[in-house]
Amino acid sequence: MPELLAVDAGGTSTRSVVVTTEGHCIGYARAGSGNPTAAGPDHAAASVAASATAAIAAAGVPAEKIAGAVLAVAGVSPQIGVRAFSAALKARGIIATPVFESDLLATFFSGTYRDAGYALVAGTGAAAVRVERGSIVATADGLGWLLGDSGSGFYIGHRVARAAMADLDNRGPATDLTRMLLAEFGQEGGRDRGPDGRPTAVSHALDALYAIRPVQLARFARLAFEAPGDEVAESIIRDAANALVHTLNTVVTSGMRGPIVLGGGTLIRHRTLVDRIAAGYAQDGVSSAVRTVADGVVGAAVLALREAGVTADKVVFDRLTASLATVR
Amino acid sequence: MPELLAVDAGGTSTRSVVVTTEGHCIGYARAGSGNPTAAGPDHAAASVAASATAAIAAAGVPAEKIAGAVLAVAGVSPQIGVRAFSAALKARGIIATPVFESDLLATFFSGTYRDAGYALVAGTGAAAVRVERGSIVATADGLGWLLGDSGSGFYIGHRVARAAMADLDNRGPATDLTRMLLAEFGQEGGRDRGPDGRPTAVSHALDALYAIRPVQLARFARLAFEAPGDEVAESIIRDAANALVHTLNTVVTSGMRGPIVLGGGTLIRHRTLVDRIAAGYAQDGVSSAVRTVADGVVGAAVLALREAGVTADKVVFDRLTASLATVR
Repeated sequence: MPELLAVDAGGTSTRSVVVTTEGHCIGYARAGSGNPTAAGPDHAAASVAASATAAIAAAGVPAEKIAGAVLAVAGVSPQIGVRAFSAALKARGIIATPVFESDLLATFFSGTYRDAGYALVAGTGAAAVRVERGSIVATADGLGWLLGDSGSGFYIGHRVARAAMADLDNRGPATDLTRMLLAEFGQEGGRDRGPDGRPTAVSHALDALYAIRPVQLARFARLAFEAPGDEVAESIIRDAANALVHTLNTVVTSGMRGPIVLGGGTLIRHRTLVDRIAAGYAQDGVSSAVRTVADGVVGAAVLALREAGVTADKVVFDRLTASLATVR
Repeated sequence: MPELLAVDAGGTSTRSVVVTTEGHCIGYARAGSGNPTAAGPDHAAASVAASATAAIAAAGVPAEKIAGAVLAVAGVSPQIGVRAFSAALKARGIIATPVFESDLLATFFSGTYRDAGYALVAGTGAAAVRVERGSIVATADGLGWLLGDSGSGFYIGHRVARAAMADLDNRGPATDLTRMLLAEFGQEGGRDRGPDGRPTAVSHALDALYAIRPVQLARFARLAFEAPGDEVAESIIRDAANALVHTLNTVVTSGMRGPIVLGGGTLIRHRTLVDRIAAGYAQDGVSSAVRTVADGVVGAAVLALREAGVTADKVVFDRLTASLATVR
């Protein structure tokens, strides 16, 4: 009985699982960022290879016995990603040529055994898909921090930073976010003014914020959720939830009500956002079956089985999730 | 009678003028970008030196006779800017040590001989200042494309690009901006769809837009003004005008009504925006004396005279503007 490798390569961490063709998860491991855009192709490939090797070791099977491999990962192009991933796996003795699948599809199949429905993912970025007969047939957003990703971790963190700067600059309303953001850099929220009439905290904050890559502003998203009662923070969260509901609505068709699978770090960590999205959905008459998944590793296993000719029906899906819990 | 050098170093071009201590402009020249943030310190310094040398040649005076030099430039810090500028001038035989002044102050003094009032500048970025007794005493915005610059060329161009992408992605309303933006890259606005259900134009546009530096999205600001009647474009312009009025209001005090000097490429080129700002001002009871200036070169000359101990009163100011027109 051949074993299969399934990898869910995300921006923060990468998860690998070894699964039998009957749907038993027999080895699991994690490593660092496997997203080639966030971490660079070489670092991403190293994370994938490290987690895969550790999962295979945990399963107690020889690497060369792995008969098939699926990598669920965002942003892989033949130019920058495929070659690096394939080479890194081969260097670890994993001879199966990996099949690349969408991370959004892996999220979807982590939440349901059905072959049709929706997935909405909000981590650093944000996107929604409609799935029919097991394939993505419509996609909305996922256009990156500069041109899209409405409602994402970047979107929220960027608004937090802009709101704090506007407050310091006397252009925006007072908000707790200012003190909280300055504290992230070990700065006090003092209002000492420089000779140009501007608080000196402004230039210190600018130096700190322009020193990181723009997309890293996503790290400040959590501040919005840690300021209950703050009107500025509340309005940022409300706008984000509305944007995510809108992105999801863009791929929803009236003929298909669900299931709706929610994933990604920004959604997983912030129940407020999930509740608002579910409520937005109930109002739109699509209340059915909103569920949240921690990551896409179950879905990656579902896709690995499918690649091997095995359909993950309800029995196999339940076996995957139950056995994963024992090895995780 | 010693001659003075005044340089207005902007993001798009640099203007130098040689002025006598009586306020006669006797030589003028232009060169490329003199903004160290936009062009890099070495390129910016080369532009400043090139325009200064050409202005001195046009004036027909020996470079070593220049008794004082003022450089009006944004974003100069001792670390990155001052040394490069001073060295570049010295290499051209201009021995006067340049005095650095704010580009915002130069814009203000390009529009008035008075020593108190306001300036609002919107080019790629946007900022407002209050001037009292010839010095900046309050500043709003100017915090850069990522964290501020509300209403600026970047702000408008970024919204144009996001609106076009949202339209292509079926998340946003249909807008002429989509066709116009695609045409900038020589693309058609066709709606052919890829296997993920998304128009193929989406990935082509993303490739083109992520290939430029984010701040260069400012180049698409003009599209918003070239789509009359388009609701999306109109709302972008309305939001930008409101943001600029808000930035200006942040530095306005009730005791001082003006003058209000408007400058920067985004304002100069788009009368619509100026009219909206003037109207916003009239509503706020500060209708007085809104004027637009093409650049900050007159103000740089005013500051060079001041540095030499000469006050540019109304007579001198009028002489500066009149004589500049003859050498320009």
